[in-house]
Amino acid sequence: MINVSIAGGTGYTGGELLRLLLNHPQVKIDSITSTTSVGVPVTNIHRDLLGETDLCFTNKVGYPDVIFLCLGHGISRTFLRENPIEESCKIIDLGSDFRNEPIFGSRQFVFGLCELNKEKIRKAHNIANPGCFATSILLALIPLAAINKLSEAVHIHAITGSTGAGKKLSETTHFSYRASNISVYKPFTHQHLNEIQRTLADAGNPILPEINFIPMRGDFTRGIFTSIYMKWDGSMSETEIIDYYKQFYEASPFVFVSDEPISLKEVVNTNKGLVHIEFHNGYIHITSIIDNLLKGASGQAVQNMNLMFGLDESAGLKLKGSAF
Amino acid sequence: MINVSIAGGTGYTGGELLRLLLNHPQVKIDSITSTTSVGVPVTNIHRDLLGETDLCFTNKVGYPDVIFLCLGHGISRTFLRENPIEESCKIIDLGSDFRNEPIFGSRQFVFGLCELNKEKIRKAHNIANPGCFATSILLALIPLAAINKLSEAVHIHAITGSTGAGKKLSETTHFSYRASNISVYKPFTHQHLNEIQRTLADAGNPILPEINFIPMRGDFTRGIFTSIYMKWDGSMSETEIIDYYKQFYEASPFVFVSDEPISLKEVVNTNKGLVHIEFHNGYIHITSIIDNLLKGASGQAVQNMNLMFGLDESAGLKLKGSAF
Amino acid sequence: MINVSIAGGTGYTGGELLRLLLNHPQVKIDSITSTTSVGVPVTNIHRDLLGETDLCFTNKVGYPDVIFLCLGHGISRTFLRENPIEESCKIIDLGSDFRNEPIFGSRQFVFGLCELNKEKIRKAHNIANPGCFATSILLALIPLAAINKLSEAVHIHAITGSTGAGKKLSETTHFSYRASNISVYKPFTHQHLNEIQRTLADAGNPILPEINFIPMRGDFTRGIFTSIYMKWDGSMSETEIIDYYKQFYEASPFVFVSDEPISLKEVVNTNKGLVHIEFHNGYIHITSIIDNLLKGASGQAVQNMNLMFGLDESAGLKLKGSAF
Amino acid sequence: MINVSIAGGTGYTGGELLRLLLNHPQVKIDSITSTTSVGVPVTNIHRDLLGETDLCFTNKVGYPDVIFLCLGHGISRTFLRENPIEESCKIIDLGSDFRNEPIFGSRQFVFGLCELNKEKIRKAHNIANPGCFATSILLALIPLAAINKLSEAVHIHAITGSTGAGKKLSETTHFSYRASNISVYKPFTHQHLNEIQRTLADAGNPILPEINFIPMRGDFTRGIFTSIYMKWDGSMSETEIIDYYKQFYEASPFVFVSDEPISLKEVVNTNKGLVHIEFHNGYIHITSIIDNLLKGASGQAVQNMNLMFGLDESAGLKLKGSAF
Repeated sequence: MINVSIAGGTGYTGGELLRLLLNHPQVKIDSITSTTSVGVPVTNIHRDLLGETDLCFTNKVGYPDVIFLCLGHGISRTFLRENPIEESCKIIDLGSDFRNEPIFGSRQFVFGLCELNKEKIRKAHNIANPGCFATSILLALIPLAAINKLSEAVHIHAITGSTGAGKKLSETTHFSYRASNISVYKPFTHQHLNEIQRTLADAGNPILPEINFIPMRGDFTRGIFTSIYMKWDGSMSETEIIDYYKQFYEASPFVFVSDEPISLKEVVNTNKGLVHIEFHNGYIHITSIIDNLLKGASGQAVQNMNLMFGLDESAGLKLKGSAF
Repeated sequence: MINVSIAGGTGYTGGELLRLLLNHPQVKIDSITSTTSVGVPVTNIHRDLLGETDLCFTNKVGYPDVIFLCLGHGISRTFLRENPIEESCKIIDLGSDFRNEPIFGSRQFVFGLCELNKEKIRKAHNIANPGCFATSILLALIPLAAINKLSEAVHIHAITGSTGAGKKLSETTHFSYRASNISVYKPFTHQHLNEIQRTLADAGNPILPEINFIPMRGDFTRGIFTSIYMKWDGSMSETEIIDYYKQFYEASPFVFVSDEPISLKEVVNTNKGLVHIEFHNGYIHITSIIDNLLKGASGQAVQNMNLMFGLDESAGLKLKGSAF
Repeated sequence: MINVSIAGGTGYTGGELLRLLLNHPQVKIDSITSTTSVGVPVTNIHRDLLGETDLCFTNKVGYPDVIFLCLGHGISRTFLRENPIEESCKIIDLGSDFRNEPIFGSRQFVFGLCELNKEKIRKAHNIANPGCFATSILLALIPLAAINKLSEAVHIHAITGSTGAGKKLSETTHFSYRASNISVYKPFTHQHLNEIQRTLADAGNPILPEINFIPMRGDFTRGIFTSIYMKWDGSMSETEIIDYYKQFYEASPFVFVSDEPISLKEVVNTNKGLVHIEFHNGYIHITSIIDNLLKGASGQAVQNMNLMFGLDESAGLKLKGSAF
Repeated sequence: MINVSIAGGTGYTGGELLRLLLNHPQVKIDSITSTTSVGVPVTNIHRDLLGETDLCFTNKVGYPDVIFLCLGHGISRTFLRENPIEESCKIIDLGSDFRNEPIFGSRQFVFGLCELNKEKIRKAHNIANPGCFATSILLALIPLAAINKLSEAVHIHAITGSTGAGKKLSETTHFSYRASNISVYKPFTHQHLNEIQRTLADAGNPILPEINFIPMRGDFTRGIFTSIYMKWDGSMSETEIIDYYKQFYEASPFVFVSDEPISLKEVVNTNKGLVHIEFHNGYIHITSIIDNLLKGASGQAVQNMNLMFGLDESAGLKLKGSAF
């Protein structure tokens, strides 16, 4: 059994990790930390877990085989400085700290997009888990980047559920505001653009076109629906592209190419990503869906753990989707 | 034109009053106060009013003909002590301060349930505007109370939209919590029980049976759906009761008896109340619907103002429902 | 009083027209027709209107001053052939029949986008009421087209509420499917593209760039949120553009430019359109919101009627928004 | 491996069974039948299963060890007459056909409420799977019935998600109707009352009081929230009752007593049932939550199968809840 610690277990990604790991056949949860709820049963915070665990939050990490950092963006470095972790302990950081600056002391972080970096992840000691928008967009674009086919401006709109904004109360997560409402935020400037661009370049597309990205707030709790298009040079037909994408994702237990148009709930509460491709008027149009808390965060983190420890990549991740 | 002041204009009921009064043909808004946003355009807070008003929040009440108090429960008395209002100025309090203790200095407050107290309201100088749950329940029960027919235990479940909880951020108004969720709160102990019981007694039913009331939080923003039943002695048939209710509400421009089962959205964004009655197995079952911010708060407050100033009772209140 | 007939009154746009016209100060509803519900009270179908009207559906148009056609796309021509309308009767067609082919016998139809064609509409005898997506997109782009500034590819994503799909039951309007779901439909090929392109050209931009339009199905009932961007040549600054837009819409009682980012519910249940503009990285980004059933259909139809009959443009259209 | 057939696999309960059984460690799906979609891949209908199965619908049942009937209420008898099933094949019927009339030829059906009839189910050859409302209500009341404590009138309101109404399109499952809407249906007369009453009597409460049940339609897709109260004789204190309930459900892997008030999403997408108890004013108030498609249908069906075949009761049912 793998001894696991979750650092920062009261938030959404920490809770979701817990939901996954409690059912993972090869994991023992060693500790789940919190600065604010030490000694409190985790079911007081994650009430849906009643009957599934007797764990309490602690402020001691202990000596796990792997620690998941669910600390909020920018806090992981501080945490590691203040809480020395054994050298031998692997780290999977769900924050943004090491995505673009992958070094901390002697630790080198691999960008944990499993479908791109599987072999590197298998050998990695430290993982920077990708952002949710980044994952959704990269799953749609990585196959093209891998053959250096991103040369025309890329146009992206992606709409996210409220859990993407975390547990913090704010005007835009107030139910009376958010219900039946739609809005745009950080157009052209979202912080995930960096990791998207770097990853696409690394994947095989060194010179990138403009990536225009408009994030939207949706009136649902889980999921990201991404719509992307760009001019297409005609070097491959629609059928060839679809076949190529299917082949590209053939080895992935979670990412699939749909021949039919997709709708968000087809992946909600699963670790899957679905991609659908159509050609129109000289454009290639790609839609992509993930659950932001699973493939976009905690699910992918477990997938990374599985790879790092030589387990079945889908161990603990064969989830029943909610479908409705 | 009636000069109106709104005290406490940044919250939900203050904003809804503003939405109504800006279109009211016989009202001029003299001032809208706030302790936190003095000098700020009201459209900064109530963004849906863009293009409809240039008003700014102030901390001066001025010399209105009537002031609406939208201050939160328990704050109206303090406000009146600290902000002397001209004797001649009428007061309509949307808080709970004067519903059960209707005296403040020389001012006597009338309970502003228009369908019950229309003549008293016409002569009133001060109004305690009913609570939202209270209004929904009273519209269903007042006709029976008026003929002293409440003698068996009354069983009530009522489900409210999130705006009933006000603008304050809290765990239960967080979108990620509230969406697609249902819960019960304050079962048997909701603070509106007092005004419900007192009003039913005053209406003609001095000795009341048990009133059991389970409030529920719904996953929608506007409206209260109330389901009530009690044993029925058979002294009047279903048809007779329905006819009696129709007659009881004949003079009301807003309350109607539906021959068909009702659904909440039939009244959302209107000042209407709908009531439907069925007999089953020796019980009378009454369902009742209102928009909590309108007939349950700001709409009824304007209806009270109309009556107090001798205007058409429905002036400014012929609202297009949202229907969907 | 203007005598009005509504042809096809059981659907969503017919019902919404009724909601508006019942409160319109200068309108008398002469008839509301249906092929399937002759003799049935309109409140049996539009249950939210209980207490507001005793009208029944009829199959006779009568002799109105104006008839609104709410018949579904492609049926208006057939209806006019089978139901001769007096020459003197004005026609406002809410379907798509006359938007791109504006002639029927001796009748010439004016495209009823009030903010563009106000003077023509004032003199018009027949109006082709714009489509909902078209209205939302045109309000964002018309000011640029009017100064021939559309020269770079235009990128549009717009997300619509379920009422845009009408009353018909279908898989994608089933609650269990649609709730918390997002999908794309008719990418690059939506039928409103024609009227959008033609109108932009007519407005002053004879040579148009590509207009790329991705419509999306949202999980709410009312409203369209549109996000548009295109490369900007820098000939006018952000401030200049915003000022120009404000000036362009100065005379409109319904369209406003917001200095702050907008969210859909700011216009729901109103006839308003809001537009917000930001410059980023050499792009102009415009967001635009309307209520699809009001400014996108029945509200604009009434606005057209007001103009055609010399009434105040906003008569019957000062609606209290739902805000929440 | 247990060979399983699903009869009627295109609907909601059939699809949900498939979602569960595809991940069940001891099950092989032999066939999934449909009368309308023979030869069609199941992923064409249940699109969320893309990548998880290559099964196609068939019209041949084959020779399974157990068949699940997901045919709609009243159709199971007809199906069994027209599709002879091997004597040795166990049957689990998700319809209502055998709940109150448990005999078909030589087959005797056991009512499959696992928490009540565990030992009978272990030995059963045929199961009548309980209804969703019935399960939610019975989990709240069975412990009291087991000690013959139901003597005062029971007052129940329960609100259900849209999936309870199945896949069929209807006015009340139209998104534009259902979103943000609440309504009552079949008050006092819901068809589950029979199985509720019979089961409570069988559980140890031969003489039953009135059971008053008001079902409500909620504006969410999954789950049933039930609120029940009745006068309490004081023979046991609140603490004693709560302890008794905890003890009653001690052996159940799925039903738990919550010390804190519960909200619906704590069980959505799980096979769990949660119960919470409070005493007020001489009443015992019990709230109860389940996912209607899981513990209220397909999940409980699998739980029954597990018991019938001597498997771990929770095999294939340790589901990650959706929580949000």
